[in-house]
Amino acid sequence: MTASVSAPQPTRGKLASSVSAEQLTEITELFQNRRLGYSLDSPFYTDPAVFALDMQAIFGTHWLFATSVAEIPEPGDYVTVDYGPYSLIILRTDDGGVNVLHNVCRHRGARVLTEASGSTGNLVCGYHSWTYSPEGELIHASTPGETKFDKNCFALKRAHGQIRAGLIFVCLAQEPPTDFDQVAEIFEPYLAPHDISRTKVAYQQNIIEEANWKLVMENNRECYHCDGHPELACSLFPTWGLSDESVPTHLEEVWKRNKQAQASLEERCRRYGIPFKVVEELDTRIAGIRISRESLDGDGESFSPDGHRLSKKLLGDLRDFRLGRCSMHLQPNSWFHFQSDHIITFAVFPINEHQTLVRTTWLVADDALEGEDYDLETLTHTWKQTNLQDKAFVELCQKGAASPVYEPGPYMLSEYQVEAFLNWYTQRVLEHLA
Amino acid sequence: MTASVSAPQPTRGKLASSVSAEQLTEITELFQNRRLGYSLDSPFYTDPAVFALDMQAIFGTHWLFATSVAEIPEPGDYVTVDYGPYSLIILRTDDGGVNVLHNVCRHRGARVLTEASGSTGNLVCGYHSWTYSPEGELIHASTPGETKFDKNCFALKRAHGQIRAGLIFVCLAQEPPTDFDQVAEIFEPYLAPHDISRTKVAYQQNIIEEANWKLVMENNRECYHCDGHPELACSLFPTWGLSDESVPTHLEEVWKRNKQAQASLEERCRRYGIPFKVVEELDTRIAGIRISRESLDGDGESFSPDGHRLSKKLLGDLRDFRLGRCSMHLQPNSWFHFQSDHIITFAVFPINEHQTLVRTTWLVADDALEGEDYDLETLTHTWKQTNLQDKAFVELCQKGAASPVYEPGPYMLSEYQVEAFLNWYTQRVLEHLA
Amino acid sequence: MTASVSAPQPTRGKLASSVSAEQLTEITELFQNRRLGYSLDSPFYTDPAVFALDMQAIFGTHWLFATSVAEIPEPGDYVTVDYGPYSLIILRTDDGGVNVLHNVCRHRGARVLTEASGSTGNLVCGYHSWTYSPEGELIHASTPGETKFDKNCFALKRAHGQIRAGLIFVCLAQEPPTDFDQVAEIFEPYLAPHDISRTKVAYQQNIIEEANWKLVMENNRECYHCDGHPELACSLFPTWGLSDESVPTHLEEVWKRNKQAQASLEERCRRYGIPFKVVEELDTRIAGIRISRESLDGDGESFSPDGHRLSKKLLGDLRDFRLGRCSMHLQPNSWFHFQSDHIITFAVFPINEHQTLVRTTWLVADDALEGEDYDLETLTHTWKQTNLQDKAFVELCQKGAASPVYEPGPYMLSEYQVEAFLNWYTQRVLEHLA
Repeated sequence: MTASVSAPQPTRGKLASSVSAEQLTEITELFQNRRLGYSLDSPFYTDPAVFALDMQAIFGTHWLFATSVAEIPEPGDYVTVDYGPYSLIILRTDDGGVNVLHNVCRHRGARVLTEASGSTGNLVCGYHSWTYSPEGELIHASTPGETKFDKNCFALKRAHGQIRAGLIFVCLAQEPPTDFDQVAEIFEPYLAPHDISRTKVAYQQNIIEEANWKLVMENNRECYHCDGHPELACSLFPTWGLSDESVPTHLEEVWKRNKQAQASLEERCRRYGIPFKVVEELDTRIAGIRISRESLDGDGESFSPDGHRLSKKLLGDLRDFRLGRCSMHLQPNSWFHFQSDHIITFAVFPINEHQTLVRTTWLVADDALEGEDYDLETLTHTWKQTNLQDKAFVELCQKGAASPVYEPGPYMLSEYQVEAFLNWYTQRVLEHLA
Repeated sequence: MTASVSAPQPTRGKLASSVSAEQLTEITELFQNRRLGYSLDSPFYTDPAVFALDMQAIFGTHWLFATSVAEIPEPGDYVTVDYGPYSLIILRTDDGGVNVLHNVCRHRGARVLTEASGSTGNLVCGYHSWTYSPEGELIHASTPGETKFDKNCFALKRAHGQIRAGLIFVCLAQEPPTDFDQVAEIFEPYLAPHDISRTKVAYQQNIIEEANWKLVMENNRECYHCDGHPELACSLFPTWGLSDESVPTHLEEVWKRNKQAQASLEERCRRYGIPFKVVEELDTRIAGIRISRESLDGDGESFSPDGHRLSKKLLGDLRDFRLGRCSMHLQPNSWFHFQSDHIITFAVFPINEHQTLVRTTWLVADDALEGEDYDLETLTHTWKQTNLQDKAFVELCQKGAASPVYEPGPYMLSEYQVEAFLNWYTQRVLEHLA
Repeated sequence: MTASVSAPQPTRGKLASSVSAEQLTEITELFQNRRLGYSLDSPFYTDPAVFALDMQAIFGTHWLFATSVAEIPEPGDYVTVDYGPYSLIILRTDDGGVNVLHNVCRHRGARVLTEASGSTGNLVCGYHSWTYSPEGELIHASTPGETKFDKNCFALKRAHGQIRAGLIFVCLAQEPPTDFDQVAEIFEPYLAPHDISRTKVAYQQNIIEEANWKLVMENNRECYHCDGHPELACSLFPTWGLSDESVPTHLEEVWKRNKQAQASLEERCRRYGIPFKVVEELDTRIAGIRISRESLDGDGESFSPDGHRLSKKLLGDLRDFRLGRCSMHLQPNSWFHFQSDHIITFAVFPINEHQTLVRTTWLVADDALEGEDYDLETLTHTWKQTNLQDKAFVELCQKGAASPVYEPGPYMLSEYQVEAFLNWYTQRVLEHLA
């Protein structure tokens, strides 16, 4: 996969951001008083100033998952995405790379592209027809009588973008953290066999959850609540985060089945030369990651009630349906499940301190025919339901966090990845503040 | 009636509340400059910081009306109520008392119970199945592999609760004000004859009014606006707050009829040994109260167009329908009308500085049959209409208070109870700040 | 036209306004750093503190367009209008003048009149029946038993109002700027021939635009975007703000036609003694104005696809339909188009920093019959569509201004009136702060 990276321009000074010095002091103290092993204090989930800080220190600074090449396969295809107050155009280029442009016209600030996705040549702002090249250069503006106007000064601002294993990442910082390259080298061998570039979008679900984005991420980082996901529990072993020592009695049966399935899966992976080992660096690097290939229950193929395939077409050059799920978590805003027959990507877009858009996209082989090779409702049922259940869970937490008597609660051993997420978050914000 | 009181745990320190020191200074000055006999300055009705202070100084500190035993008659019955950011579970116990629990799971902060009412044994949080006893003790949490987890440290936080004359009161303070006991001793003899424990809920109306909670209370504390309540005016003498000296000409006729009805009512009360005298300590104690038994117009029995009974079944051991209304006001958030045939309770739940939930509940004898002993629409008509009219009134005031030219206006003599409410409010907040 | 002006009363001190000293300092710095020829910095469009300042420095200080005598032709007719938190009653008086009263009852602050328009004798507050004369004097309040109540102290607060050429202007300041008289003397000869007093309202459109009021005004002050107005482009020459030097190639044809039409129009105006010359003092005085009479395309009569009249009745004593458009811009909140057959008034009412009500009113001769002399849909089509297109444009800018990478963009020569608006705005606010 090629990558296209360009340096964004600095922004002009403006009214003090919505985080005052006094608020920063208080937030810093909250971080310093953070109790390890416990959820965060209420303001981290409810306070607009913390949200503004999150937008700077997390979303304004790190590599973020945005979309995949399956959504914009052809040159000129684009999607627009919003991270809090930022709006971006993500545009596929002729050379197979990606341009990431701030969706803010340099004339009067209008959104240049107003659709969620589409295909375009040059980018024409609908307000005064200022026209930009796919690289963001201003190539036409009606300037009757102007003598001093220099088009070169008014290119669309750019953000960084790159494609790794078919996934598209963006970074709003002027100087993106460099360790993402190492992380991409980690995950590419796991994902490459599923070859996103030969998939197509079967379905996309957009849910607005009435909760802070961190609660959405925390919820995703543990399966301690998986009793609340009856559809998911059919195929996903509810043993995530557990070990021989920590398996509760009622899961011992499942644990045994899980271990057998895992051994069988790993043997198969070795046969095909497909990586499966757990790599877990969730809070030990800037681009926190966890990736592994894990078995599924039943037939062990896909997220169906009996674990059987949901699409009849294998992805990429895979030759076996029984490959479980290759699951990846990336800090701060994404997770993924790659099966032999379909891929699911999850992107988290914060809206404000109490609302978050969760976008889930199902990808199948580009030659799979709906109705013949897969049934759309069956394909999407498990995770559509799971997402709605998760929405309900995190919304209960958002309400609870607002109570004056709320205090941080303890994470269980099986929730260690939630804590890792918060460790990562805390470190990254404190480093930004330093 | 038994009472069940327990000490709540202190909360952990967190980011400075939403009231800054500077704001407190300004609010304190506003109090100090308050003009007696006049409505409050605009910020008391419109400012989020004042609302946050109200939640601390008033709702976080005093005894609040929540519900009645008619709503949770059996052990295990519960209602959930919200006072601003607080969410509470009010649960009937096996011994007839009441447990008041903060509806915030100690694990991740989720709302434990999500329904407005219901019946339950243990309380199971829907997120990770943490299970609490009716007393709030954590009795089960899946803790695979945990070695240091002490369930005793994670009981649901409790608030104080007590049942007096079938009414259920809660207090969020660690040390509730003690004079409520004296106040309960005042009102119990008035209410006991209506015996709430032998009533049932006929209907409940929940209205969200787009107004500050204090405007809702102020509106309830005067009948100067009762020309705007045509249904209510049929049975309620519109002379409330008036005296021989202050009766306006157009009410002289009514005043005379009122005095005759009152004399007749008092004679009847004396015969039955039912208390009727006015006790009015609205701003002279911590638990401000006004209680009295007052005559109704027409047949003098109930809030119907002709004052005739609205339910054929007498409450408790009453032997006469012509007992007018025993009306009680309690600071800060409730009022009540007890008639011989039905009871109406009014509870005010602030939502934010410009929204308030008003919950009205009609109770009838538990053996009264709908359609036979009472017609639901007829029973509730007068106060349903009156509430909607009041909603319109206070919403006009909320809009007006936002105008930069608004200034406090004078209360009339018949509005002295409004002023008493504000005196009480001012005293209580200033004492809290001291 | 007569004018009725009265001094408003000062308001009582209250909690510090929503603009803190620190915020004022930052805003002042933003003004000082303003880049001439460029749009404003983001906070001017998005920050509640700037909005609060706008309400004080612009809307609380200057003459504002509110309505016209066509909307309140008879004594007792009124409209209510809101400028941000202010609510006003604009009431036609017996002598043909206008009273402007704050719509805030002096008793408890309720809105006195709750309808958008109507006709009334005395003004009766619906809450406690306090009754005010059309001049705002409190003439009745039930005051049973009161001994110290002085009705004279509780008149409705007044604002200034005047009628000029049938347009009604209000001023919330205690001492209105006096140069408005000179401005009215400028525009009266232009508008008088259309005689608003002999028109009637054919239609009124109210649109809430999700944008700051300044973006709404800026959008109106240029035709650089008129390619986005296909209906309007049929009759309005899209050459506004251009000169011989600055006409772009694709408009040269139109420019030539425009000049011919303009010459013909001016000749006709001279014949009838109707003023037509451009007066442009948009940022060189307190009551900024631009007025001119300009030709329309096609038949040159009205805003129809072929420029033909939209109503068969001439306004006032006009004797010719081919009079183009007499267009007027007034700072801060209005613009107008006067044709021979109908008039359109546009009033901008800010709601908050991101919402604005735009009210457009179509006036026709008072003896024009709908269905016979004019078709309502045809009459209103061009500007209804144009308004909706403008709403979409400004909403795109509001979103863009919120992006952290937004920076002020350059105005083109043909947008000089936008810059004039911002020059005026900046001067007026800075003078207010000084």
